[in-house]
Amino acid sequence: MSIIPALQWRYATKKMNGEKVAQDKINNILEAARLAPTSSGLQPFEIIVVTSKELKEKIKPLAFNQSQITDCSHLLVFAAWSYYDLNKINHYFDYYERERDLPKGFSDNYKINVAKQLTSMPIERQFEHASRQVYIALGMALTEAGALEVDSIPMEGFINHELDKLLNLEEKGLKSVVILPIGYRDTENDWQAELKKVRKTTADMITFIE
Amino acid sequence: MSIIPALQWRYATKKMNGEKVAQDKINNILEAARLAPTSSGLQPFEIIVVTSKELKEKIKPLAFNQSQITDCSHLLVFAAWSYYDLNKINHYFDYYERERDLPKGFSDNYKINVAKQLTSMPIERQFEHASRQVYIALGMALTEAGALEVDSIPMEGFINHELDKLLNLEEKGLKSVVILPIGYRDTENDWQAELKKVRKTTADMITFIE
Repeated sequence: MSIIPALQWRYATKKMNGEKVAQDKINNILEAARLAPTSSGLQPFEIIVVTSKELKEKIKPLAFNQSQITDCSHLLVFAAWSYYDLNKINHYFDYYERERDLPKGFSDNYKINVAKQLTSMPIERQFEHASRQVYIALGMALTEAGALEVDSIPMEGFINHELDKLLNLEEKGLKSVVILPIGYRDTENDWQAELKKVRKTTADMITFIE
Repeated sequence: MSIIPALQWRYATKKMNGEKVAQDKINNILEAARLAPTSSGLQPFEIIVVTSKELKEKIKPLAFNQSQITDCSHLLVFAAWSYYDLNKINHYFDYYERERDLPKGFSDNYKINVAKQLTSMPIERQFEHASRQVYIALGMALTEAGALEVDSIPMEGFINHELDKLLNLEEKGLKSVVILPIGYRDTENDWQAELKKVRKTTADMITFIE
């Protein structure tokens, strides 16, 4: 198996046609994001899946009125922990120990090290570190979408703090990082659909030291 | 096709056995990283692939002497642009126009907008923005490795500025972000290999707004 055909098939879809994506495909895309590996396994983010037409209409102006916000089937909002909250870290390790049938407290030394390292960073760096992990999961989600021949387009261009307010993310200790409209391309009106994919050459990007 | 089996198969490999990974598999893993989508298509990073035994030995102490640095087959170093250099942005758009058979200067308006947006961020934020893109490519690389049943482990824990110096990254305008040893698990000595994968539940991670 190889993901290369899926990566070649996908592209940043500029125009979507409003068609609904079947729930089992959405579940697979979310499952890929859920399985993404993250630093120390903490998975310091959540995903909000918006299908509400009304809410999409409210989000659209926060994202420069890009049409995919309302023409997509499901809008995924990836939101990272705004900082490494000790309660969240403890919650994760309690869960980890239960999942692996370990005695409670078994991971305390490791947990304390992880917590010390993460919480000793300035708050802004903590959010950045969590945001980087989000991008792994984003990559998994859009690869799985491509593998299922479902279209998507990652978007960083939106007014984060207004989206955070709209979705009540602050009270969950979250901040939006990136959004991912998922749907189907409007073949007739998306001039990008048939264009050649542009990527740097291997020679321009990769150095071998043997 | 679905990447979920590959994501379920892979795990953070704690002990590798030194076996070499075939070049065609390495090429596929690098190709997945090369195809990763990035903000405005800029691909603001490079990958250094280390197979030199001598160089791996020098890198090992910079990464807390983790054994995978020397027991892996290929060590991938992902290095992001340390800031959004206008020369690099121009280089990309020149290439983009040639690849799509567009007249030179066709993308100038778009380019100027992208450049203005990126270079107006403080230098540190520019590097962070580029680093986030690296994590998409990292995700692609480790998914492709999993798909090919090749082991890998992403590592953030190393002394970045010393690695940068060792690999002369500064003079290329790059800073190391994350490293990825690729190889084969040492089944007998990696106690993690058979453990249950721990991931947050869907309920804990995903909210649906319908």
